[in-house]
Amino acid sequence: MTSEAEREQARERAADLLHEAGVVLTGDERREMEVVDYSFDRLEEVGTEIVVYENNDRYCAKELVLFDGQTCPEHRHPPFDDYPGKQETFRCRWGDVYLYVEGEEASESESDGTLQNPTVEPPFRDEYYTASEEIHLTPGEQYTIPPDTRHWFVAGEDGAVISEFSSPSFDEEDVFTDPKIDRMESSY
Amino acid sequence: MTSEAEREQARERAADLLHEAGVVLTGDERREMEVVDYSFDRLEEVGTEIVVYENNDRYCAKELVLFDGQTCPEHRHPPFDDYPGKQETFRCRWGDVYLYVEGEEASESESDGTLQNPTVEPPFRDEYYTASEEIHLTPGEQYTIPPDTRHWFVAGEDGAVISEFSSPSFDEEDVFTDPKIDRMESSY
Repeated sequence: MTSEAEREQARERAADLLHEAGVVLTGDERREMEVVDYSFDRLEEVGTEIVVYENNDRYCAKELVLFDGQTCPEHRHPPFDDYPGKQETFRCRWGDVYLYVEGEEASESESDGTLQNPTVEPPFRDEYYTASEEIHLTPGEQYTIPPDTRHWFVAGEDGAVISEFSSPSFDEEDVFTDPKIDRMESSY
Repeated sequence: MTSEAEREQARERAADLLHEAGVVLTGDERREMEVVDYSFDRLEEVGTEIVVYENNDRYCAKELVLFDGQTCPEHRHPPFDDYPGKQETFRCRWGDVYLYVEGEEASESESDGTLQNPTVEPPFRDEYYTASEEIHLTPGEQYTIPPDTRHWFVAGEDGAVISEFSSPSFDEEDVFTDPKIDRMESSY
């Protein structure tokens, strides 16, 4: 389990990247930054640092930070009850990010559902990384991910700061491809 | 009418402020930046420069730029059809902004509906500026404006860059307190 000291170190490092990107946080936002290890004790490889600006019943806005090579593992935002599932727009603010989404190309060309030569390799447990349409985002570039679409993403060599604009966020409803991952137990 | 040369000059100046704030735009975003003069030919005093990142049927995200002392005049986002009206969160990224919203204080203390000593005076036509609850936002601070609530805002002496996160935006439905203002005819 990622220790609280390691989480605090991650918050410090993420705050430095946000500062580099010109993003100003309040003291509370800095202190309450979410550090998610996705149930692995390998935060450098698998993790995300998140500042939630606003999450109300109509829209949500966050800043996502990834360190050099840090990966957010594959997941999707399914519909539930009357909610059609979370739709989200990733806007790269700083550094660069490789985003992989489930797409036409992937489902047509890969009979066994595994990845074909992505620019960046998934960190490990690669049977749980299937989305293979690669979108490389540099600062100022953005991409909108439809609801219920498998996706994963990883920062380039300088790390990345991503603004996420979306419909309301219900992290507890996220479905990760790797059944080991417990999203709600992996951040605090 | 604000000339195209004046509008292009405003885009250039707004792009400089965004650059100062660390915000990176694509070439298309820079070229398509909206310059709104709110039907006055006094852009330095009354106007807003806007980059729309995303406006879909579920959420909207924009960057708003105001020059030193430039004012966005009072308006509200009313409900229409099945839509409950636009709700928006303003997050100050750079500079500072004085936001005035219709509030308890205003409606209780002012019998004639006029402003009581705001820090920043409205530019002119002040009978059309009635919201008087002052919220001063500095970088990292944000405020959420409920639907159908009158509000206006003005930048401090260095200008301001504001990220707006909101429900979907329908500019054509905005209601300005000053009936002279035609929102849709005042930007291109």
